[in-house]
Amino acid sequence: MARIVDLAGGGAPPELDDFRDLARADRRPDRPGGRGLVLAEGTVVVRRLLGSPYPPRALLGVSRRIDELAPELAGLDVPALVADAETMAAVVGFHLNRGVLASADRAPVPDLTTLLATAGRVAVLEGVNDHENLGSLFRNAAALGVDAVLLAPGCADPLYRRSVRVSMGHVLRVPFVAGTWDELAGALRAAGFVLGALTPSGDTPPAALAAADRVALLLGAEGPGLSDEALDLADHRVRIPMAAGVDSLNVATAGAVAFAAVGAAGVR
Amino acid sequence: MARIVDLAGGGAPPELDDFRDLARADRRPDRPGGRGLVLAEGTVVVRRLLGSPYPPRALLGVSRRIDELAPELAGLDVPALVADAETMAAVVGFHLNRGVLASADRAPVPDLTTLLATAGRVAVLEGVNDHENLGSLFRNAAALGVDAVLLAPGCADPLYRRSVRVSMGHVLRVPFVAGTWDELAGALRAAGFVLGALTPSGDTPPAALAAADRVALLLGAEGPGLSDEALDLADHRVRIPMAAGVDSLNVATAGAVAFAAVGAAGVR
Repeated sequence: MARIVDLAGGGAPPELDDFRDLARADRRPDRPGGRGLVLAEGTVVVRRLLGSPYPPRALLGVSRRIDELAPELAGLDVPALVADAETMAAVVGFHLNRGVLASADRAPVPDLTTLLATAGRVAVLEGVNDHENLGSLFRNAAALGVDAVLLAPGCADPLYRRSVRVSMGHVLRVPFVAGTWDELAGALRAAGFVLGALTPSGDTPPAALAAADRVALLLGAEGPGLSDEALDLADHRVRIPMAAGVDSLNVATAGAVAFAAVGAAGVR
Repeated sequence: MARIVDLAGGGAPPELDDFRDLARADRRPDRPGGRGLVLAEGTVVVRRLLGSPYPPRALLGVSRRIDELAPELAGLDVPALVADAETMAAVVGFHLNRGVLASADRAPVPDLTTLLATAGRVAVLEGVNDHENLGSLFRNAAALGVDAVLLAPGCADPLYRRSVRVSMGHVLRVPFVAGTWDELAGALRAAGFVLGALTPSGDTPPAALAAADRVALLLGAEGPGLSDEALDLADHRVRIPMAAGVDSLNVATAGAVAFAAVGAAGVR
């Protein structure tokens, strides 16, 4: 059972440090000097964190939110710090609307070969450096049956707080591995994946890949798109059918449309 | 030809008033007391405005951006006010990264019956009160061949500046009409549309509607979803196939996946 610690009783337990001054740049896990902690905000995302491979360290929340999480906390030996909204805001550095936070350590990075051995659909992202787009891509990947996300060069860290939030916590559930194109493409080919690169100049609709057992969809950031290196690696250049005169979709939206068109075994 | 007025020469032409204090709530077109002007930001969106039915009033931009728009401005009798970035920021009330703004009057609202007479795919939105989601829905609608957007009760105004920007200007190109459910559903039925309501409890995949000549997809806001009134109006309850344990997609993303699955005549 989680240890409930009511901060109204006074004192500042050491676990409170996990939640201090979150707006400061050095609290970002992806920056040099950052503390590296993973943070989940809100009941839905905290619940996903508690069901994920990320080892929870502590919770901080108003009593109503901590109470809501009682079933998930029952089997866990983590401190749950209860505070009023003003105290939370003073610790965190800004007002949170969601009333509960959880901190966790990073989980071990999965082994790429092991991960691909059981995957049928993967997304490979290049240069996706916008935290919201990255979070949205993970949310869409989770919803549409994508088994893993591979991060080619230039991507932001999915564990940054805003990505965790926008993903609705799915960055904590969809496994991801970062690597060079050589590493990623080598492992994908060895595992028998068909590589489809999304590009406005493509000639293959995503649905044409639906029959393949193993499909990797390569996605680049809106604007620059995929690098020539990535395009050259692909077996197919994939284009979502669009109306004349419209240039593109947001990268997370393009991912969703393509994931849905390719289909996945676990999706029904 | 547009009249180029360089503000460095001194003076404040009356057209400059279109761009003053844009952060103030009463400059929002959707609020009581708002001025009702439509505003486009950035070269891409201003270009779409100039090619839309919205009558342009004036431009304000740095000289490089006004120069880029010279081809579009050649045939127009509107003042183009040239200023440096500091002067623009002082007029507007905040720093714009995009360097150019255009103002326009509202266009006449299309007649619903006339609009539906030539439409094959329409989106019907209910309770979509988030300006970013609304803008994204228009962008996705434009890209995926949706001919019109109908706004059932509870939606925000698509012409609010943030929606215009997030839509990449497509709210100015995809025609829209607001109405009650009685008005909208009556007109859709009279025009022979099949009504598909997106809901997590649906039983029909969106692709099952692809063969119909005329399809209206009903979408509600994330969270509450469609009202019972809307669900009762629909011929089909549509559900996007998803992985087990994932509850939903963002409403604009769900729209994109459904629009793509239903298909449209102009999309290729």
